[in-house]
Amino acid sequence: MSARVSVEEHAAFVRSLLSGLGARPTERVALAEALGRITASPVESPIALPPFRNAQMDGFAVRAADVAAVPVALPIAGEVAAAPGEPAALAPGTAVRIMTGAPVPEGADAVVPVEDTEPGAEVDGAASVTVLRGRSAGEYVRDAGSDLEAGDDVLPPGLTLGSRHLAAAAASGLTELLVRERVRVAVISTGSELVAPGETLGAGEIPDANGVALAAAVRAAGALVVHEARVRDDVERLRGELDAARAAGAEVVLTSGGVSKGAYEVVRELLEPLGAWVGSVAMQPGGPQAVAAYRGMPVIGFPGNPVSAQLSFELFVAPTLRAISGRPAASVARIALAEPLVSIEGRRQYLRGRRDDDGRALVVGGPGSHLVATLAASDLLIVVPEEVTELAAGDLVETIAL
Amino acid sequence: MSARVSVEEHAAFVRSLLSGLGARPTERVALAEALGRITASPVESPIALPPFRNAQMDGFAVRAADVAAVPVALPIAGEVAAAPGEPAALAPGTAVRIMTGAPVPEGADAVVPVEDTEPGAEVDGAASVTVLRGRSAGEYVRDAGSDLEAGDDVLPPGLTLGSRHLAAAAASGLTELLVRERVRVAVISTGSELVAPGETLGAGEIPDANGVALAAAVRAAGALVVHEARVRDDVERLRGELDAARAAGAEVVLTSGGVSKGAYEVVRELLEPLGAWVGSVAMQPGGPQAVAAYRGMPVIGFPGNPVSAQLSFELFVAPTLRAISGRPAASVARIALAEPLVSIEGRRQYLRGRRDDDGRALVVGGPGSHLVATLAASDLLIVVPEEVTELAAGDLVETIAL
Repeated sequence: MSARVSVEEHAAFVRSLLSGLGARPTERVALAEALGRITASPVESPIALPPFRNAQMDGFAVRAADVAAVPVALPIAGEVAAAPGEPAALAPGTAVRIMTGAPVPEGADAVVPVEDTEPGAEVDGAASVTVLRGRSAGEYVRDAGSDLEAGDDVLPPGLTLGSRHLAAAAASGLTELLVRERVRVAVISTGSELVAPGETLGAGEIPDANGVALAAAVRAAGALVVHEARVRDDVERLRGELDAARAAGAEVVLTSGGVSKGAYEVVRELLEPLGAWVGSVAMQPGGPQAVAAYRGMPVIGFPGNPVSAQLSFELFVAPTLRAISGRPAASVARIALAEPLVSIEGRRQYLRGRRDDDGRALVVGGPGSHLVATLAASDLLIVVPEEVTELAAGDLVETIAL
Repeated sequence: MSARVSVEEHAAFVRSLLSGLGARPTERVALAEALGRITASPVESPIALPPFRNAQMDGFAVRAADVAAVPVALPIAGEVAAAPGEPAALAPGTAVRIMTGAPVPEGADAVVPVEDTEPGAEVDGAASVTVLRGRSAGEYVRDAGSDLEAGDDVLPPGLTLGSRHLAAAAASGLTELLVRERVRVAVISTGSELVAPGETLGAGEIPDANGVALAAAVRAAGALVVHEARVRDDVERLRGELDAARAAGAEVVLTSGGVSKGAYEVVRELLEPLGAWVGSVAMQPGGPQAVAAYRGMPVIGFPGNPVSAQLSFELFVAPTLRAISGRPAASVARIALAEPLVSIEGRRQYLRGRRDDDGRALVVGGPGSHLVATLAASDLLIVVPEEVTELAAGDLVETIAL
């Protein structure tokens, strides 16, 4: 029996096998699909922002020189709305009524807000406005390009796209963005005892929880599930599903089950002869683990118990997927224990827990790797180091938020 | 001109108009679609977890009484795998080889791990196992129902579903869950100057940034966009889109543009005669706002400038949508200013900013509500209260993470 490797050694092994995923292929996606994706290159705006000089306030477009001395009455030569079309140039000594966002006519160099004016008498048969407060050139005028010049970068590469980034891209007239492809993952549950959730259970059968859970965990980590399967303990069936995963473009395969020392360990049986490492990690739950390359495709083998499989994903695969997809890492905190606990020596224990009303970490349920409902009732993992066998209430423990 | 209302008053007004959204209709969704959704009722497991008594280790199922004195050799009567089928009952004085997860035969009450055994001599022509360490009744046996009894709640109501919750539901044999429907939102951009992003811009035209940005922000807040439209400043067209939103089942409509005091203010023109409040909030950007009910459907009207529209969504609508969909509230922190700033009296300023290398808040760009690229380059809003006109470097300011 091979010696157990440490959690850190195994994590580093998996991380190095997955390091090739960091160099992502790219794809173009519509803005409406781009939320949460990551820009693959600097995004250049083809137009200036704003594209044309426009009014910052409702009011009157004027020549600043004409309102240097106030009050002054100016005939109203027309009106410019925020609407298509080129306004006529402003004749000296006149004003044009203008709406926020409307193009400022050539010849005008300031906007007098409507609050600083009052209706004037008719001048030569036309309405006039009396300007009560002068404005210097440029006031209440947004220059073309004052936010961004045409050709400038509106978004940097490596950015996780939020709604405000999509706003800037749309304002630049863009309809799609070049983003990194999501990592393509296959999820394969193994075990002759497994049936699809919802199927009637015969003797010795249980619903497969790992397929649903690992696929959801992959998606939550920002990756894409391209193939899902469930196989009984049959080497040729597993080989067939690995081939199907490869045909679906999977860049990594996650298996559950079939990695321990017993008989009918299908992942071990297929992959060990192909050079897989199948061994034991000094942790509980989740000791038996496998790491392989199948026809060049990384395969990460988790134990079959749902709690073990989910914990293994969280520790060994999620950090890489989250980093690639711009998702935040799991939050780790040191919290005081609510109650004493005992642990086994030589393995790192990951106990399921939650915060009690005082914010202290409380163990939920027992250490059994089959306690899938208990895991669902937990919101953190309590980490007990290998060398620690007893902890007292109030001792600080490392916790990982779920 | 009506007096300005405070940010708090307006937020409370919008919140009360949206309070009816809290009572959500429910829908059944497949487990694979349920990630991030919220359970609408307690979820009962139709089966016990585990569904049958099974082995916690690879080893031998025995009667504890038969291994009370060790070492003891027991003939191996057979083998039980984790696979369909009912194992034969264990005859007293025999052992059965058993795999992790396999059903423990009737008559057996303990499992001896393989590490605590060694191969024995043949007994009556059959292979035997020598048990080196006794086990008491129940050891390494997982009882049916030890995680959960049939009929127990496996998930509580009001839970935001993560992968571990889906694991527990799948392990219970469930295929779908009753969840709260997402809030159904319509997004309508108004303004004759707007064209779809990507269309060639004529004079006086700009791409519509608000449609894309508000729809993405709605999705990021956990709600569903059921109708999107862009209308020019034409009351009948806006009425048509509101009717279409209603027909699409929208529970709330977000409009941008058309709410200020100028001419061609289409939201004001349509909705004010129907009883809308259209007025000014003491904030910058985002002062002009509207709140209405159109045929019983709440309509929240934001200003047309993209920065104003996005800020208005964040302040007035996002908190309600996030709370309903179980998303965390925006994170608020008090941070020291990197540089002095000046602000206008009587309005709350929301300046765009980011953290500098020392973690202090740095203003990015100017206060203009048209600076959509600047907003994209920001990652926080710096809040300057109404009565404050000057702040020094090092002063603490409230910031809202974007």
